[in-house]
Amino acid sequence: MKIIIINGPNLNLLGKREPSIYGNETFEGYFELLKTKFLDLTLNYFQSNSEGELIDKIHEVGFHYDGIVINAGAYTHTSIAIADAIAAIKTPVIEVHISNIHAREEFRHHSYLSKNCKGVIVGLGLQSYDLALAYWGLQQKNK
Amino acid sequence: MKIIIINGPNLNLLGKREPSIYGNETFEGYFELLKTKFLDLTLNYFQSNSEGELIDKIHEVGFHYDGIVINAGAYTHTSIAIADAIAAIKTPVIEVHISNIHAREEFRHHSYLSKNCKGVIVGLGLQSYDLALAYWGLQQKNK
Amino acid sequence: MKIIIINGPNLNLLGKREPSIYGNETFEGYFELLKTKFLDLTLNYFQSNSEGELIDKIHEVGFHYDGIVINAGAYTHTSIAIADAIAAIKTPVIEVHISNIHAREEFRHHSYLSKNCKGVIVGLGLQSYDLALAYWGLQQKNK
Amino acid sequence: MKIIIINGPNLNLLGKREPSIYGNETFEGYFELLKTKFLDLTLNYFQSNSEGELIDKIHEVGFHYDGIVINAGAYTHTSIAIADAIAAIKTPVIEVHISNIHAREEFRHHSYLSKNCKGVIVGLGLQSYDLALAYWGLQQKNK
Amino acid sequence: MKIIIINGPNLNLLGKREPSIYGNETFEGYFELLKTKFLDLTLNYFQSNSEGELIDKIHEVGFHYDGIVINAGAYTHTSIAIADAIAAIKTPVIEVHISNIHAREEFRHHSYLSKNCKGVIVGLGLQSYDLALAYWGLQQKNK
Amino acid sequence: MKIIIINGPNLNLLGKREPSIYGNETFEGYFELLKTKFLDLTLNYFQSNSEGELIDKIHEVGFHYDGIVINAGAYTHTSIAIADAIAAIKTPVIEVHISNIHAREEFRHHSYLSKNCKGVIVGLGLQSYDLALAYWGLQQKNK
Amino acid sequence: MKIIIINGPNLNLLGKREPSIYGNETFEGYFELLKTKFLDLTLNYFQSNSEGELIDKIHEVGFHYDGIVINAGAYTHTSIAIADAIAAIKTPVIEVHISNIHAREEFRHHSYLSKNCKGVIVGLGLQSYDLALAYWGLQQKNK
Amino acid sequence: MKIIIINGPNLNLLGKREPSIYGNETFEGYFELLKTKFLDLTLNYFQSNSEGELIDKIHEVGFHYDGIVINAGAYTHTSIAIADAIAAIKTPVIEVHISNIHAREEFRHHSYLSKNCKGVIVGLGLQSYDLALAYWGLQQKNK
Amino acid sequence: MKIIIINGPNLNLLGKREPSIYGNETFEGYFELLKTKFLDLTLNYFQSNSEGELIDKIHEVGFHYDGIVINAGAYTHTSIAIADAIAAIKTPVIEVHISNIHAREEFRHHSYLSKNCKGVIVGLGLQSYDLALAYWGLQQKNK
Amino acid sequence: MKIIIINGPNLNLLGKREPSIYGNETFEGYFELLKTKFLDLTLNYFQSNSEGELIDKIHEVGFHYDGIVINAGAYTHTSIAIADAIAAIKTPVIEVHISNIHAREEFRHHSYLSKNCKGVIVGLGLQSYDLALAYWGLQQKNK
Amino acid sequence: MKIIIINGPNLNLLGKREPSIYGNETFEGYFELLKTKFLDLTLNYFQSNSEGELIDKIHEVGFHYDGIVINAGAYTHTSIAIADAIAAIKTPVIEVHISNIHAREEFRHHSYLSKNCKGVIVGLGLQSYDLALAYWGLQQKNK
Amino acid sequence: MKIIIINGPNLNLLGKREPSIYGNETFEGYFELLKTKFLDLTLNYFQSNSEGELIDKIHEVGFHYDGIVINAGAYTHTSIAIADAIAAIKTPVIEVHISNIHAREEFRHHSYLSKNCKGVIVGLGLQSYDLALAYWGLQQKNK
Repeated sequence: MKIIIINGPNLNLLGKREPSIYGNETFEGYFELLKTKFLDLTLNYFQSNSEGELIDKIHEVGFHYDGIVINAGAYTHTSIAIADAIAAIKTPVIEVHISNIHAREEFRHHSYLSKNCKGVIVGLGLQSYDLALAYWGLQQKNK
Repeated sequence: MKIIIINGPNLNLLGKREPSIYGNETFEGYFELLKTKFLDLTLNYFQSNSEGELIDKIHEVGFHYDGIVINAGAYTHTSIAIADAIAAIKTPVIEVHISNIHAREEFRHHSYLSKNCKGVIVGLGLQSYDLALAYWGLQQKNK
Repeated sequence: MKIIIINGPNLNLLGKREPSIYGNETFEGYFELLKTKFLDLTLNYFQSNSEGELIDKIHEVGFHYDGIVINAGAYTHTSIAIADAIAAIKTPVIEVHISNIHAREEFRHHSYLSKNCKGVIVGLGLQSYDLALAYWGLQQKNK
Repeated sequence: MKIIIINGPNLNLLGKREPSIYGNETFEGYFELLKTKFLDLTLNYFQSNSEGELIDKIHEVGFHYDGIVINAGAYTHTSIAIADAIAAIKTPVIEVHISNIHAREEFRHHSYLSKNCKGVIVGLGLQSYDLALAYWGLQQKNK
Repeated sequence: MKIIIINGPNLNLLGKREPSIYGNETFEGYFELLKTKFLDLTLNYFQSNSEGELIDKIHEVGFHYDGIVINAGAYTHTSIAIADAIAAIKTPVIEVHISNIHAREEFRHHSYLSKNCKGVIVGLGLQSYDLALAYWGLQQKNK
Repeated sequence: MKIIIINGPNLNLLGKREPSIYGNETFEGYFELLKTKFLDLTLNYFQSNSEGELIDKIHEVGFHYDGIVINAGAYTHTSIAIADAIAAIKTPVIEVHISNIHAREEFRHHSYLSKNCKGVIVGLGLQSYDLALAYWGLQQKNK
Repeated sequence: MKIIIINGPNLNLLGKREPSIYGNETFEGYFELLKTKFLDLTLNYFQSNSEGELIDKIHEVGFHYDGIVINAGAYTHTSIAIADAIAAIKTPVIEVHISNIHAREEFRHHSYLSKNCKGVIVGLGLQSYDLALAYWGLQQKNK
Repeated sequence: MKIIIINGPNLNLLGKREPSIYGNETFEGYFELLKTKFLDLTLNYFQSNSEGELIDKIHEVGFHYDGIVINAGAYTHTSIAIADAIAAIKTPVIEVHISNIHAREEFRHHSYLSKNCKGVIVGLGLQSYDLALAYWGLQQKNK
Repeated sequence: MKIIIINGPNLNLLGKREPSIYGNETFEGYFELLKTKFLDLTLNYFQSNSEGELIDKIHEVGFHYDGIVINAGAYTHTSIAIADAIAAIKTPVIEVHISNIHAREEFRHHSYLSKNCKGVIVGLGLQSYDLALAYWGLQQKNK
Repeated sequence: MKIIIINGPNLNLLGKREPSIYGNETFEGYFELLKTKFLDLTLNYFQSNSEGELIDKIHEVGFHYDGIVINAGAYTHTSIAIADAIAAIKTPVIEVHISNIHAREEFRHHSYLSKNCKGVIVGLGLQSYDLALAYWGLQQKNK
Repeated sequence: MKIIIINGPNLNLLGKREPSIYGNETFEGYFELLKTKFLDLTLNYFQSNSEGELIDKIHEVGFHYDGIVINAGAYTHTSIAIADAIAAIKTPVIEVHISNIHAREEFRHHSYLSKNCKGVIVGLGLQSYDLALAYWGLQQKNK
Repeated sequence: MKIIIINGPNLNLLGKREPSIYGNETFEGYFELLKTKFLDLTLNYFQSNSEGELIDKIHEVGFHYDGIVINAGAYTHTSIAIADAIAAIKTPVIEVHISNIHAREEFRHHSYLSKNCKGVIVGLGLQSYDLALAYWGLQQKNK
């Protein structure tokens, strides 16, 4: 199974930015770990701060990948365009968040993406990504 | 008269994406048809998934073209910046939508763009573009 | 194809009322022009200030006409009953507005009718009616 | 006891209009059935698509009839004037609806009339009228 | 000066309806009194329960009368169409209410008409009409 | 046909509590009357002040009874869990209320249950239950 | 009859302030005119920019004057304390406004005072005060 | 590690209730599977339709268990009391939902519990529970 | 005088739960103190996490006790059923809260109970109960 | 301990104003009673109808008194400035209300002051002041 | 150029009040510094806790001063009367705030004054006043 | 000190776009002026119409520049992602606006950025930038 992790705006600062909320590990480092752990899955990684580039990438992979794990960062709460892109493609998507968005500001409680995603995993740190991949692993076994 | 059609995010997937809502014709194909039909008008076409690129294009054409037909897709509902760009230029703009946005989700009922546009045509399929061009045709005759 | 244009309250004052918004041509005069222009279509016209009479007319024509073009004036924003009448009939309906309702008062931004109509054309002056008829002309050709 | 059933806009289309919601029996046919069933009650029937005519009728019967059964259709949700007419008269009123208005669009959940009526019966098909008459039958017996 | 008093729905019941709120004098009786009092003004009176007929009357008088005194009853709170009619004519309009609408239900606090009227007089019983005419009397004197 | 009447919180106080709103008859007394009146129906009765027990009872009867008449009292306005229980079972449910909830406080106007029920009967005193049973009686005859 | 006119904040600037909205006559000048016109009434005048002083004055006159005419200026829209003072006294109060507050900003449409006043006169220029005094004149005659 | 799964109202109907949304497997059957899969964890299970009993259970286990997986069903959206119970205990809690609550009715989008939980897993069918346990498994390994 | 203190959900955890907000004294301990202090009053105590049991207890004591002191915990903000129970009984009720609910989350600012209670005491720690009993003591003396 | 009672607008009318809500005792009389009752406390009293004077007084006493009991009357619901003054000083404040503000108009339910006060006592008549002083008495004993 | 700085409620406590938000310098001290720094400008200073006195001062200086720098404190968020005073005068006004009002409570985010002011400077500590004066300095140079 | 000015969408049109609101000077021209004026500061300038590029730039400079002056144009009102970027970096940011956003459309009154910025300067034309730089100048002096 071919899976891609797509990270949105400011997640390139992971490890530098507000460590009390997001921890101090870089995502690139963590991604290497995930690859060694999920050997059965072909894993790719993409990050951009631009809404348009995220949509372009979703289009590009959305008709032949087996799964997408997306953390759209702040675009989660403002981008109907990314939500539309998710609705437009064939590949199922799992939305993840590192921090518990429901325990933060009011405007972070609503996600335009959730309703078009297969599922949502929130607040379990970088392990949110871990579990999303575990889900794809389960699907692969059940094939 | 020099007219440009500007399409926003996800409209590059037309023909592939949710055909029950948007039909299964690609926009490029339809654009060829329009060119053969409106021989009096000089027609151009631009598509981008990026809000910034759409604004750049509006700036570029907005002081010497005679008309813009815009379908800003999901940015219709979230982009004050595109609405500002439309207000900032001299060329009149007609907003079009393929599907009837008033018969869909609540958040698609409001458009930031409408108030700065000349007019709005909604829900008549790809013929929404057709009628917008017909409007420019009428203007040309009345000159 | 048999088409009727139905105009709602205060549109009988067209040409007299607030000319800065609605222009100074009477609708009856414009209707004569439309008839000479769309020779392929059989055109009728009806106007009333009464919600009940508008509903009566929609019922009367709604099962054997080929198309309705409606400008329900202020009832657009308050009449669920007219919206229900449109939903109840078989003939497809196009909603039109002379002025750009999205550039006016807040309470004119919402239409109860739109969601039950085939499409909506807004803000192109009396040419909004023109384009609606052009749409029916296109359908006739495609038969 | 003298009872009148008053039906509002679009209910004259019953049997033709959206049969999946309203069934395919005409109200006139059903009214004949009700007369044969409630022989103890003197029954009358009135329908109009006009808010003003409905108010006129409520005034006309509202000081000497024993009961009114009203289905004001879409005016239920928009007419303070009909609600005022009900408050102004002496005859008690039961509001009925054929379909379950609470299972339909948001704007059909609120009725201006309910608070001025004796009671409300919703969603039991044409039998909603049946039960309203049964209520007046019970009152007659209890006299 | 030629002045017309226009009364809306349910005001024909004045004297019968909810006397604790509206008093027990009929409007026709009061109108006779007003005529004997304002001998300098030519006074007319019109009442209807129909929104459409009220609009027709406003159109009819609105370009050659010197003043309109309107109590649109419940349509005050729901009719954008009557508000549009008032905006569309040349004759200035004073809105009156017998009861203090601000001391009643929430939905009676807002008037669509007020913003298009010259002025508003509320809550002074039938004397609200009296003062409105007194205003026209003052204008006549100042000529 | 096997029918159960389920009463929610505070309805055990009927006859004691706020007699100006709810009358001074106990429900148990009234239930005996209903049994003598609807001899064709097998009638049962259950009351609880506990949301959980009401759900348990709905589950218990909801797959083999022919009808449920429920007055969920104040849980009507707050319990999504009871609404879910009604949606989860096979037996159709009629919601009843003794008082006219639309003529009381704002927060009593909305019911979570209505949309999942077959129908709703409101404001006709204890006869609201009577009519609900009459409905089941009509169904039995029509079989 | 003893009547006082109470003016709130910024009304001391009348004649200087925003003449396009409020005209260019000072209130003191106009008050002299009113005194010569309403010879039957004993008239007093008070103005303050301070909410507390306005309340003090209302308390002072509110148990032995026959009428108060109040234009509370911007405190109309924010002062529950003045509204409470009006409710607390015995003297009836008429609220007046020079400009049509319903045709201005949204936050000027609501008055905390209206519901506790006898009546409200809005938008008739300085003649709003005139009519309010005319009302007290009528009461005096009817005694 | 000692983990308990707590299920709220209507989840005892799993396998019977609305299978198009919730599937047709009973939770008890699935729980047996989970036990054979997570041999390292000591697993317990509790279900109740009563808000009070769910709170009692949370108190009972909340100071000596290592983890709680809760699906509070409809109480998710209405129970501040369960949210308080979660905040009051020491054991960390993961909230799970079988269906994607964000793709259902508006009132299911908000959870009172989320903000007090460690994390939230939504929409992945019964595998939502699976992943929650996987999370505890990861924690055990990292010890 | 016979007084009962009724505590709602999670208050059994007092002394254990979030001590920074609620202090670290158990309520049972404090209740012993209160009994030695208010020797003139007969004091009882009841706690439950179940909404239904709280209602049952209110019914049980509500017609022969002289006073109720209730801290309904989180049900304060969600339970119309407990509010109804308080309205239905004869015994006057004082609502108390240990913490200042107005200084906490938005959803804790509104109480369904307050309007049906005699009075409310908020934010004075366990001494809130103390003052409520002092109130009953004052009533006893004034007899 | 040195305590001051501060009363806001209209409370000088106590005994005269709306006795059905506020009783017919003057506050000055009651204050004499309180002084004889709380001999251990040094009591002062201040009343003003002016927001600014209340703030001046709070500043004056707020750094050397031991407690403030404030009933800010209608300013409770509109004055962020008084709320700021309470937050700015060192002396703890108890907010009191004579009537049950939660059982009155909607706009009286919210207090800007509460969140900055130590506690709130509502609806127990003049005894609300009594209990507030009792609280300071308890603090004095516990020293 | 003649400039006045006007400070509203609680700003007289600067240096004493909540130093973590407002710093511990008194405004009087800072004002002396400003005078030595802006030698080209004639500077005055006024502070009051009373809304009415602030309006009086704005009227007094508003027709012959060259600039006003206002920090209306909490009245910023509640006073339409001060906003009206600013609109009524000729002198341009700059609104300043010491703390970042947008990073504080929701109710401090809206200012009634801003829309009538020339500009707004927020959150730069006492240097907000500094920059406002710098602006007037720039204007003086550009003359 | 190293300072960068970052301008968002449509600000490249300055001088061309809506000169009645924004003036007719280009920003590039003005920037040259600023450099000659603030010789102590090292000034840079960046403009983009793309949200992603603005975020990239903020990241790039945000850990080693001494100050950022940002005018995010319309993104001010919609971009949580830019707000997050500002929160994520170490360099303090001053938000500026040329026009008075509080005197324009409702949707321009709220800024997502303000709460994460050091301060905000609004409505003083291009001099808003001037004052922001003056602030950094003051900081430099105070070092």
